[in-house]
Amino acid sequence: MAAAIRIIGIDPGLRRTGWGVVETLGNSLRFVASGTVRSDDKAALASRLRQLHDGLSAVLHEHMPHEAAVEATFVNKDATATLKLGQARGVAMLVPALAGLAVAEYAPNAVKKTVIGVGHGDKKQIHMMVRVLMPRASFDTDDAADALAIAICHAHHRQSVAGRLAETGGS
Amino acid sequence: MAAAIRIIGIDPGLRRTGWGVVETLGNSLRFVASGTVRSDDKAALASRLRQLHDGLSAVLHEHMPHEAAVEATFVNKDATATLKLGQARGVAMLVPALAGLAVAEYAPNAVKKTVIGVGHGDKKQIHMMVRVLMPRASFDTDDAADALAIAICHAHHRQSVAGRLAETGGS
Repeated sequence: MAAAIRIIGIDPGLRRTGWGVVETLGNSLRFVASGTVRSDDKAALASRLRQLHDGLSAVLHEHMPHEAAVEATFVNKDATATLKLGQARGVAMLVPALAGLAVAEYAPNAVKKTVIGVGHGDKKQIHMMVRVLMPRASFDTDDAADALAIAICHAHHRQSVAGRLAETGGS
Repeated sequence: MAAAIRIIGIDPGLRRTGWGVVETLGNSLRFVASGTVRSDDKAALASRLRQLHDGLSAVLHEHMPHEAAVEATFVNKDATATLKLGQARGVAMLVPALAGLAVAEYAPNAVKKTVIGVGHGDKKQIHMMVRVLMPRASFDTDDAADALAIAICHAHHRQSVAGRLAETGGS
């Protein structure tokens, strides 16, 4: 009998990092939990990064996911914003790596294509589809909803890879 | 009797992160050690960030600095490079913060102004002045030399702050 795989999706940000945990078994998908780790924007940068580290570490400890997925950051034109996001993203990828998890990366349009069927769409459509795919899902922020969408994207893609391997008998 | 303060300077980069440890007591400055932490550019990003984390953690463990200083990243025009640097820098600031160290940040021109006397100058001038200020200093890469310059900058600035406080009787 196959065991359910527990996946954490992470949507990194220095101010707010969203996370969402789902379980997948075959084609079924189950909501486990979601939330938002915040950092104090009056604190020094190193302290804020530590707050993100400590918050995400606590989530991993509580929910014990097997695999992680992080959104491949949209590179916008504001270099200062890109740098801030990069620093938060470095911590968001490091924490699951330190826990021994494989960390997959998905481009934003790959997440949209998986969740809403096309490579473009607004936040509302993504949130609606997260609720359609997992009626029991709840989220406190847009970042947590986006993190669930990233987890769903990984659940879908890891299955297709496993499916292809099973069909071809490859390893 | 005042105790020497041990400072680690860090010059973050995803491929190579330079580090340099110095000791300061009053106006004296002593070279302790320097080196370079590398990440394997064929590995996945999360693994590379973990390699930087593990390497820097080992350095902190070996040399037990009291304070840390990191260069405030130059924001260039290439967003992809800025994002990579941001991710490495997030880890470089997180590691000393996790060890309970205060982490100061200095702009590149502040480092140059402290070490060579003016806010501009090339790498060669910085390396020469590092050797003038600490004749026993050795470094294996430009990144390690830059990290020593950052540590020297912090040694200077923390003293001026302490000096001002002593003069005014402030706390």
